[in-house]
Amino acid sequence: MNEIATKDKFDLRSLPIGIFDSGVGGLTVYRALHNRLPNERFIYLGDTARVPYGTKSLATVERYALENAQFLASLGIKMLVVACNTASALALPQIRAQIGLDVVGVIGPGGRKAVEIIGGEAPRIGVIATEATVASNAYADRIHDACDKAQILQQACPLFVPLAEEGWTDAPETNSIAQKYLSVFDEFKPEAVVLGCTHYPILKQVIQQTVGENVKLVDSGEATADEVVELLHDKGLDNRNVVSGSRQLCDDLDHFFVTDATERFARVAERFLGAKPMKLEAVEVPGIDQPVI
Amino acid sequence: MNEIATKDKFDLRSLPIGIFDSGVGGLTVYRALHNRLPNERFIYLGDTARVPYGTKSLATVERYALENAQFLASLGIKMLVVACNTASALALPQIRAQIGLDVVGVIGPGGRKAVEIIGGEAPRIGVIATEATVASNAYADRIHDACDKAQILQQACPLFVPLAEEGWTDAPETNSIAQKYLSVFDEFKPEAVVLGCTHYPILKQVIQQTVGENVKLVDSGEATADEVVELLHDKGLDNRNVVSGSRQLCDDLDHFFVTDATERFARVAERFLGAKPMKLEAVEVPGIDQPVI
Repeated sequence: MNEIATKDKFDLRSLPIGIFDSGVGGLTVYRALHNRLPNERFIYLGDTARVPYGTKSLATVERYALENAQFLASLGIKMLVVACNTASALALPQIRAQIGLDVVGVIGPGGRKAVEIIGGEAPRIGVIATEATVASNAYADRIHDACDKAQILQQACPLFVPLAEEGWTDAPETNSIAQKYLSVFDEFKPEAVVLGCTHYPILKQVIQQTVGENVKLVDSGEATADEVVELLHDKGLDNRNVVSGSRQLCDDLDHFFVTDATERFARVAERFLGAKPMKLEAVEVPGIDQPVI
Repeated sequence: MNEIATKDKFDLRSLPIGIFDSGVGGLTVYRALHNRLPNERFIYLGDTARVPYGTKSLATVERYALENAQFLASLGIKMLVVACNTASALALPQIRAQIGLDVVGVIGPGGRKAVEIIGGEAPRIGVIATEATVASNAYADRIHDACDKAQILQQACPLFVPLAEEGWTDAPETNSIAQKYLSVFDEFKPEAVVLGCTHYPILKQVIQQTVGENVKLVDSGEATADEVVELLHDKGLDNRNVVSGSRQLCDDLDHFFVTDATERFARVAERFLGAKPMKLEAVEVPGIDQPVI
């Protein structure tokens, strides 16, 4: 247990859960968490001034991720969820080393979930993700931690993020691009495919059609939300001050920060979640060596 | 004429020309300049840690552009070319106000070129660009400065940048996406279409096929290079120390800086220019309020 927690556990419980992503994609993780934890408050940071992370280098993604983590920690949170797959793949150990809080990434939960739902000795698992996530091999490592004989094939799908952001979820072009990227699985015949980027659930339908209805799609965000619920219970960190009234996505108990383009974020949030954040602010995330305000 | 120039014109002439872009796209402008000016040296900065600019806000693009301009000015240049359309559209006056050098953007030259090659009283001009460039209306403003009766239709093509970076220059999906975006021109029937993003010349062939062979495509980078040549002559800033031997793109007289992912930049540079930069360095561009090293 971290230092702050031992000081005053009761106070810690009432703090919100922090979530960060490179941009809007992590809203799918926020939704999954919000649906499971109506008694918790969330602070979401979307690093829209520096999005995307998936085509950037290890050193840069690490720096951005640490800055985001430090910013959220400075606001007072009881747990940190790294909703961005690329940041989880490249910077989770560094974030854990830097901030004195429990940190949950999306790679471990997604990988374990794939192993769990397929079962058997040597499950065949496909992983689709950004270039940086694929290059890091993080999914393959976590899947092998859970099942050392798992057979894995990874594929980067760089155009899926801009297609999801354009809202072309059922365009014939999206279908055709999906067929091109996912044809690597024709021979491999995966039993499950991990959606290893928070944008990809937006394209779930076209991905499912392309890989075939019998292939199980694993939403890392959903798997992460399950593990966060467990961890909160295990650590006794659930909020005991019961929230009165019914909760809505993006209601005024949840606070959203973006590093750029507030209006665009609100627009995409409405498309992803059916509601605009009631509390949405633009902030500048301080550099690692700069003082946190 | 700026202050430095009046101090010692001879020294100033031998300085390189600075070029910056949000990433790799500006290499098409570098190529056009290099081909016209074999006696000049260039310093190129690609802000690959913060690419793309086209989906970001005015305030953020302005800040990034000023930081890039200041970085290049600190290295000693005689003229600055803002190769990025989005930065040119959103931040040119601010850059000019901040650095004591001649600054050339790509919007003015591209707009003027379109008016010039079509001629007549009311040329019909299409503009394709990023969301931010289209929203700024900068091309329409510059075109109207050159010809107040010009008829203009603008269209944002957000997927063209990732398609160009993926190298899908003749994929059927690119063709189909081009048809979707450019169908707005079916009725408008432009005489010229300005390629208002430095990535778009990579997709020139598919764009030409889609709008029809009789429509003139204007490459803003080429138009900019023409104006830079003129400006250098007019200001008497041509380098008088004749460079010996024949020049090659990316040779060791030109210096390339990127803010991230050096290897990826070298790979894309090779695809765009047929050669990898001999001098390529990763740098951190200081914030506006930080001291420039």
